[in-house]
Order: sequence, then C-alpha cells, then structure tokens
Amino acid sequence: MSKTMEQIVNLAKQRGFIFPGSEIYGGLANTWDYGPLGVELKNNVKKAWWKKFVQESPYNVGLDAAILMNPKTWEASGHITNFNDPMIDCKKCKSRFRADKLIESNIPKEELPGPVDGLNFATMEKLIESHAIKCPECGEHDFTGIRQFNLMFKTYQGVTESAKDEIYLRPETAQGIFVNFKNVQRTMRKKIPFGIGQVGKSFRNEITPGNFTFRTREFEQLELEFFCKPGEDGKWFQYWRSFGFEWLKSLNIKEENLRLRDHEKEELPHYSNATTDIEYLFPFGWGELSSLSSRTDYDLRRHMEVSGQDLQYIDQNLNERYIPYVIEPSLGADRVTLAFLADAYEEQKISDNDQRTVLHLHPALAPYKASILPLSKKLGDEAQAIYRELAKEWMVDYDETGSIGKRYRRQDEAGTPFCITYDFDSKDDGKVTVRDRDSMDQVRLPITELTDFLREKISF
Amino acid sequence: MSKTMEQIVNLAKQRGFIFPGSEIYGGLANTWDYGPLGVELKNNVKKAWWKKFVQESPYNVGLDAAILMNPKTWEASGHITNFNDPMIDCKKCKSRFRADKLIESNIPKEELPGPVDGLNFATMEKLIESHAIKCPECGEHDFTGIRQFNLMFKTYQGVTESAKDEIYLRPETAQGIFVNFKNVQRTMRKKIPFGIGQVGKSFRNEITPGNFTFRTREFEQLELEFFCKPGEDGKWFQYWRSFGFEWLKSLNIKEENLRLRDHEKEELPHYSNATTDIEYLFPFGWGELSSLSSRTDYDLRRHMEVSGQDLQYIDQNLNERYIPYVIEPSLGADRVTLAFLADAYEEQKISDNDQRTVLHLHPALAPYKASILPLSKKLGDEAQAIYRELAKEWMVDYDETGSIGKRYRRQDEAGTPFCITYDFDSKDDGKVTVRDRDSMDQVRLPITELTDFLREKISF
Repeated sequence: MSKTMEQIVNLAKQRGFIFPGSEIYGGLANTWDYGPLGVELKNNVKKAWWKKFVQESPYNVGLDAAILMNPKTWEASGHITNFNDPMIDCKKCKSRFRADKLIESNIPKEELPGPVDGLNFATMEKLIESHAIKCPECGEHDFTGIRQFNLMFKTYQGVTESAKDEIYLRPETAQGIFVNFKNVQRTMRKKIPFGIGQVGKSFRNEITPGNFTFRTREFEQLELEFFCKPGEDGKWFQYWRSFGFEWLKSLNIKEENLRLRDHEKEELPHYSNATTDIEYLFPFGWGELSSLSSRTDYDLRRHMEVSGQDLQYIDQNLNERYIPYVIEPSLGADRVTLAFLADAYEEQKISDNDQRTVLHLHPALAPYKASILPLSKKLGDEAQAIYRELAKEWMVDYDETGSIGKRYRRQDEAGTPFCITYDFDSKDDGKVTVRDRDSMDQVRLPITELTDFLREKISF
Repeated sequence: MSKTMEQIVNLAKQRGFIFPGSEIYGGLANTWDYGPLGVELKNNVKKAWWKKFVQESPYNVGLDAAILMNPKTWEASGHITNFNDPMIDCKKCKSRFRADKLIESNIPKEELPGPVDGLNFATMEKLIESHAIKCPECGEHDFTGIRQFNLMFKTYQGVTESAKDEIYLRPETAQGIFVNFKNVQRTMRKKIPFGIGQVGKSFRNEITPGNFTFRTREFEQLELEFFCKPGEDGKWFQYWRSFGFEWLKSLNIKEENLRLRDHEKEELPHYSNATTDIEYLFPFGWGELSSLSSRTDYDLRRHMEVSGQDLQYIDQNLNERYIPYVIEPSLGADRVTLAFLADAYEEQKISDNDQRTVLHLHPALAPYKASILPLSKKLGDEAQAIYRELAKEWMVDYDETGSIGKRYRRQDEAGTPFCITYDFDSKDDGKVTVRDRDSMDQVRLPITELTDFLREKISF
C-alpha cells in the first residue's frame, strides 16, 4: 500500500473535502471543517448508518438528545470521577505531559510492575524518579507531582460562574440515550429487545489530538444502545458484532484493511463482560473505528441509583420486571469517513505516460452521484435540463470547463461514480454517454433511463 | 385557532416527538431531546432545506465547520465586544436581571429618552434610580451597578485554564462559512454569485430561554451565506426573500400564519442595509422563524482586517477585484420544526361522538411515510414483507396491535400520511387498502405500485 496520510490530506484539502478549521487564523489545535464535498460524504456516511441501524431495523428507533445535559448525568455515568488523565508539569519549562505516556515512552514494558493504566499516582511518580526521566521539551528532570485532569469540557450556563451553574459538553452520546430509555420505551410502546440509535457531536478535551480527523476534541458519533434481557446479551453481542462488520464491508471497505479485536478479560472495564473493536489499517497504522461493548445493566442501574427513578422494564406477557442489559455498537463518524476516504484513494497508472488519482467510493457515499458534461458549451441548455432533473434526487455536478479528459480526471478525484456526456448526437437519439469511474468503460444510455440507472447503482 | 402550546407540548411528549432534556434528573433549564418521531421530523426539515437551498440550487454548495473555532473569529465578528446583555443584581436577594428588560417592564415607553437598546449604562442606572424600580423577586430597591454579560459559552481547551486557552462555543454558524470563503471558492472553482449553506448547532447563554423549543441555549441553524457583486445585493436580497417564504409554503405551512416583517432603517445594525424577518403565528404569538439580512461586505472585510488575509474575489473575465457583498437567509431549525408541528396540529371533530387529533404534516416531513397494518396477526408474514420492502426507501411503521380504527388514530397523531392495510383478500388480489390521513378516504392499490405511489406523494 503506497498511499500516505499526506496524499490523502492534500487531496482532501485541494478537492474541498476537509479544510483546517479557522485556517485564516492559523487554525485551532486539530479542528477540521468539512468542505462542500466532505459534508456530502460525511452526510452520506451518517445516512448509510441510519438506514441500516435505524430505518431498516425491525428493532430500533432514533433519538437526538441535547449536547448540554444535567450534570447529575455525568455523576451517574462516572465521568466526573473517572474520566481523567494523569498530568505532570515540568517545573523548568512549564510544559505539561500525560504521566502515563511519559512513562510508556521512557521505560521498557518489562521493567514496569504492570500495565501503566493500572498504576496509581505514587507508583508512577516513583518510576519517573527512579528512571530519572527527562522533560521531552527542555531535557531537565524536575517535575511536579501528578494530578488528575478531567477530559470533559466545562462551561457555565446562566449568568453566574458559580459551581451550581457548571455544566459539561457531553463526552459521549450514549448517556442521552440512557436517560431517555423509559420515555422512548413507553411512548413508542417498544418491547425488549429494542435499540435506540443516535448521531451527534461529542467533545473530549484530549491532551494530544492528532492524525488528521482521527482524534479530534470535537467529534461525531454513530451510537446504538440495544436493550435486551439479561442472559440474552451474549447472543445479541454476536449479532451486532457481525452486523457492524458487514455494514462496513457493504460500503466497499476492503476486508483486508479491517480486523476485529476482542478485548482480553484484563482490558475490560468492570461493568463490561465483552468488548470488540473494529480496527482499520490507516496509512499511520491500525486505528479503532468502532467499539462494540456489552455493558450489562451498569448504566441503567447507575441512573436508577442517582435519579431515584425506576428504570426497570416490565414484561407484561411473562409478568417479569428487570433492568435490561445493554449492547453498545458505537462508531466514530469522522473516523469512519476518514477510513472510507483512505480506502477509496488510489493513484492509478493507466499507461506509461498517464496516471490518475481516483476515489473508489461506494456510489451511496460519493458526494456527487454523477456529473453532467456538455461536449460543447453550445449544448448547455439540454445538458442543464438533465442536471436539473437529476438534482431533484441527488447531489450532482455540472461541469462545462476544459476537455472531456480533464473533466473526467477532476471527477475521478471527487469520487463521482458516473460522468454523463451530452454530445451532438444526443439531441437526435436521446442518448448520452455514461462513463464508469472505476472501469472507465462507457455505455450509451437513453436520457429517460438515467434516473433508474443511478437509483439502482446507488442503492445498498 | 383553538390550539394551545400545552396541547402541542403534550402531544410532542406523549407521541415521542420531544421530551424534556435530562428529564429523570428534573431537566436542565429548557433543554429538549428529540424522541424517535421528533428526530425523524427534524431530520426531514433539515433534508428539505438542504434539498432546496443546496442540492437543487445551481449556485450553492454545502459546508460543515467545527463548533470550536479560533477565538480571533469572534474578535473579528464583534461577538467578544458586542454580544452582550446588560445585567443588574439585587443586593438584597441576589437575583439577577437584564437591566433593559427591567426598565421596559417598569417604565412606560413615552417616559423613556429613546429605545432601551440604545441607552448607555449610566442612563439606565439613572432611570432605575429615578423611577425607584423594585426587585421583581423581593420587592426591595437596592441594586448593583449594571455590567455587561457576554452571551457566548466559554470553555478551555487543553490542560490549563489560562486566558490563552479560552475558547467559545460558536454563537452562530455564519462565521464558519466566512472564514472558509476562500477555501470553498478556490477548491470548488466557484464564480460570483454563489452561496455556501450549513446546518449545525450553535449556543447562546440566553438569560431567559423559553416557549418550549422556540428559545433554547443550544439550537440548530439552517444558514446560507450568499456572495454577490456589490450593487447586485438588492436584487439578490429580493430573490432570497421570496425563496425562503416559498420554501415554507411549499411544505404546507398555512400562509395566513406567516408574515414578512421588513426592519425599519433605525432597527438595522450598522453593517446591514436591509433585513426582513419571516414570522410565524405560534399559539404564544408571532415569533421569528427566519431572518434574511443584507450584510454588505462587513464580515469578509472584518476577517481581512483581523487575519491579514486577502479575501477579495478576482473576476478574471472582467479583470476586477472586490470584497463580495453578502445576503444571509438564516432559519432556526428547531423553530421551523416547532412551526411545522404547531401548524399541522388539529383536534378535529368527525361526528357528534367522534373526534381525533391529527398532524397534517407534509408527507416529505412526516416521520413515518406509511404504516403497514395487518388486519389480523395471521397475516403478519405478508404484511412484514411489505414493511421490509418500503423500509428500504423510507421510515415506515408496522403496527399490529388493536382495532384498525385505533391504529388509524395513533397514526393520525404521529402524522403518518398513509395507512396500508393488508387484509384477507390481499393474498388473492395482490392489493391493499391505502387510507389517506387528511381526507380519510380509502383506495385499493396493487402492492407492486406502493413504492411509486409513495414516492410521488412524498416528493416536493
């Protein structure tokens, strides 16, 4: 695989997929803006998720909860107490680091008393002392003690900045689903098993965001919480494990670039009895796209305890009452979008003197479904009529500038699956030339059949 | 018009359109969560906007910029300096108020030296003194001085809470478009006039949110910035003025509940040469749905000044260089969704003993496009097959519980435009009964024609 992140970042910027955020002001710490093609691609990813995880699912319904939630939510979820990184400062140059990362990058694994995640602060401080770890910035060995740093963004609502008005930007969409479990179950008259899906932004004050849109402080999630009967969680875990994997493959991600990674028992948080990540082989290495977690009744139980509300499910047929178990398939919308982009990217040699850059995006994901190309500007009226007709259904492009060959290449870089050329014969025979992005084959089709042709190609 | 906000809020909650945010914790100051039907309705509103303002527009492209932006953005836009409310505290009971609202509700207009908006703090303080205005909470007259309160939510990125790490949640989506003007124009090779549309969340720390989802601190915008040549702004202002009004009407909002309100010269901010609001007659009175503003070159000029970047447009045909003028049609996604809901709501008397609650939503906006009803549970397999086929295209419901009459009523309340009943004849004649929500008329249609039938009804 010869592609690099640099190539993908460059194409993304030059073709209007992804720009650095606030770029005219020098950016803002790894924030990114989706340009005209990027917003279409990402919206198509979100729609493809919603289609399979909500719309076509006989079990699931959707939700869109607010980003700002009552802070009791984060007390119940454990984020206020546990969502921390251990920070340490260099006294000399005032640089700040994650203590666990400092230890990992300075002490060989076999010299550590155990996984860094599991060490307490005193042990970590001793290790930094005994190995005389130096500041990566200034080279001195003179650190403060280690302190907790909570990863939630804090702000204040209302007019005073007092503790009682402290609120947080949600660090995950999941809790918006849990607090609405009863409302959804009751109003939609849902029976267990059922799931609630949500697409939305979350925020984490990461110390070291990076790798383009892979790790950002502001990010979007595609999250499903699936509620089932205790004891049936194993079965449903397997169901969603293959469902998520198949979803990615059905949108043409190459299987050799995907892997499922089941977590070891020691890696699991206390509330989880199984977790599997789906990882993708980015140019920078394997990265997590999706996490599937079997969360037992932990979340609903915690919300019952903290809110005092009864969140049990009553099975009226069996006359049973229980707290449902939860299976959580969660995908990162930005990461998945980046994976589709990276996977689709190819610099293809066509002949000795000819090469092209092409995005082999699934037609359902491609920003433009087609581009309408009049062979001559004289044919603009007729070509425009086709454009207007197709634009009622999909995003399509209209391009009249440059040679047909140049226009093909531009559309290849945009991932447009079909180029539709209106030529001087078209008026007589009512047909256009449709060129396929991947095979570069051309067929002649009646104009009246274009909508059905595209509809069939785009469906998935 | 007999409907009340209470009726609409109740239906919204009972039918899974809109729940109070974090409700199990007693809510959070007028935040709201969109339930399973609400998220579909709101997504359909967003899609309908994108379809007409971006997808079908020969001028416009889309964008999705980050919520977190470089703070220089808000310096350029004027939000750091000017996006303030004047606050005053009661020294006795510590309650806090907006000084301008306190004056407005205590002093008759004719006794004021001018519009309250235009008064400086000293004048406002004198008025509160001279009229001996009392605290609305405790009745004392003992106030602090007036101070500015900035309406942007502030937070800190990175690991220190120092001034240099202060960032804001964007108070509007517009600036994300302006800072990307050059990137979009260049990469999409756009020629003036063209526009950039965006859908996204914004945040304003309103002192008094209220009226259900009409005024909330977290809200979503549907915003277009349209760039044109100076001198052509008047023409484009008129174009977008009627475009926005027609968009609302095309989705079946009753024209008698809409009005256009052109701002008087004195109301206009210094950078605007024309502004028109579209207002809707909610049960609580007229409220702004949309604001169309002619903003001259103010925004791009300010960003040029603060960033030092050249944001001029170069017209290569005319060999001209200028800062484009901007027309900004902006809609509130939550407000528009609420208006569609309120407008669609009807308690309809059918006969002396029979009445129904029905949402006459445009089929393009309705959460479910159809509900499939087997006349008997014995017909489940065949009815499920129809459900699965239609679910490939749209959100549809499947309902097998209760009498057909009861099921019709439930779907009326959900705004489902078509109920499709599979009965004992259906297997023989391959036909189903399709009942229209609004007329309650029934027709018998071949199952094979259902997709085309729905597609035609839903298109707009």
